[in-house]
Amino acid sequence: MKIGVFDSGIGGLTVVKSMLEHKLFEEIIYYGDTARVPYGTKDKNTIIRYGIEAIEFFKNFELDLIIVACNTVSAYALEEMRESAQCPVIGVVEAGILACKNSLEDKDSNILILGTKATIKSKAYEIGLCDLGYTNLDAKATGLFVPLVEEDIFSGELIDASFRHYFSDIKNSPNALILGCTHFPLIEDELQKYFGQDTKLIHSGEAIVEHLQKQFNFTKKHPKTILKFFASENPEALKSVAHNWLNLK
Amino acid sequence: MKIGVFDSGIGGLTVVKSMLEHKLFEEIIYYGDTARVPYGTKDKNTIIRYGIEAIEFFKNFELDLIIVACNTVSAYALEEMRESAQCPVIGVVEAGILACKNSLEDKDSNILILGTKATIKSKAYEIGLCDLGYTNLDAKATGLFVPLVEEDIFSGELIDASFRHYFSDIKNSPNALILGCTHFPLIEDELQKYFGQDTKLIHSGEAIVEHLQKQFNFTKKHPKTILKFFASENPEALKSVAHNWLNLK
Repeated sequence: MKIGVFDSGIGGLTVVKSMLEHKLFEEIIYYGDTARVPYGTKDKNTIIRYGIEAIEFFKNFELDLIIVACNTVSAYALEEMRESAQCPVIGVVEAGILACKNSLEDKDSNILILGTKATIKSKAYEIGLCDLGYTNLDAKATGLFVPLVEEDIFSGELIDASFRHYFSDIKNSPNALILGCTHFPLIEDELQKYFGQDTKLIHSGEAIVEHLQKQFNFTKKHPKTILKFFASENPEALKSVAHNWLNLK
Repeated sequence: MKIGVFDSGIGGLTVVKSMLEHKLFEEIIYYGDTARVPYGTKDKNTIIRYGIEAIEFFKNFELDLIIVACNTVSAYALEEMRESAQCPVIGVVEAGILACKNSLEDKDSNILILGTKATIKSKAYEIGLCDLGYTNLDAKATGLFVPLVEEDIFSGELIDASFRHYFSDIKNSPNALILGCTHFPLIEDELQKYFGQDTKLIHSGEAIVEHLQKQFNFTKKHPKTILKFFASENPEALKSVAHNWLNLK
């Protein structure tokens, strides 16, 4: 299978990492809209427009599937992207919701959703989780985690202060914590420490792999995935981050 | 005079505020590229392209002058914007450099430049200050101040932690601190407290007013400036911030 992975920037590489670990695909075309990143502070209409433009970009390739690795785009633009696309389009939000279904039997489980301002405003996770019967939901826009991670700050005083800033009113650790932005897995160790080992972390990359494995019959493992990286500005910088994060040679 | 003010987003409103306080202009057309903000993490070529596109936007109006209120654009794209424009184009970086000249007689003055990653990388302030004979210069990319301010965080634990993160290696307070990003005046009280009252803060808005007053012969005050706001996404949100920051009715 030859697939496209779309993200607003570099965050979606955490999703590619999970895909490579599970050796699912023959070829992955990654496209990051680095010239207009971030999307998480932008408007619904802008996000939809950028999502459709990404589908146009992918029309240069004959793809079997497009993965929207960005939670914000998945939350707002999936329907419009599907209408424009010539292949199936799957987003990380629906995958994250299904991951909750698969790992939380108790419908009274306390689920805390983290995301960008736009993702949280969309209520996309809440709507999907409510439909599955979960009602004990809380959501926090933790937008500062994105620039912190982009400044290579993964632990320490600033991360601790940001946790107190966002989580001071949370009395009990949730049963599950949805990392509803592809940047957040990069501080998952600190989040796990803060909320404790009993909180299950839902990671977009792992969720999408689980979702795809249920949807498609992967009979063959691909130990050597062909990877191609494209970006709307400075593809070299994206490639350099990809080489580091994905341990490529 | 009818002028255009360009910024990557809302930050340039701090420059408009200074202009209104000094009642310099008959009409101000503000354009914020909110659909692609922030520029401070982006590349030279992208910033130049966006700058030229802003000049194209302003061609819809008959302007006497264009002010580039964004330090990052001023640092990279001024020359290219001037080539495309039909009126003079003035940037906040050159104004900030001249403000140093006017307020720091001693060429051994210790000047600390703060800015976005892109502005600091350009060395635009250092080059200009060196040309004027200042050699005791230090520069810090303090990019996190932008999302902190955009999250309405102007003081407290996170601001303090970010100061320690960026400034822990600075032993002596500088004689002057250049607020080389239009977001930074919003935390100027905290910066002044951190560095002490002896540090002179150079503010892009005040610097550009001082620069314009030297360049142009303003014989008439305009107590009622006509203000028009445009944005590449959600102009209503920009107008709402403008009404708050500028105390408009």
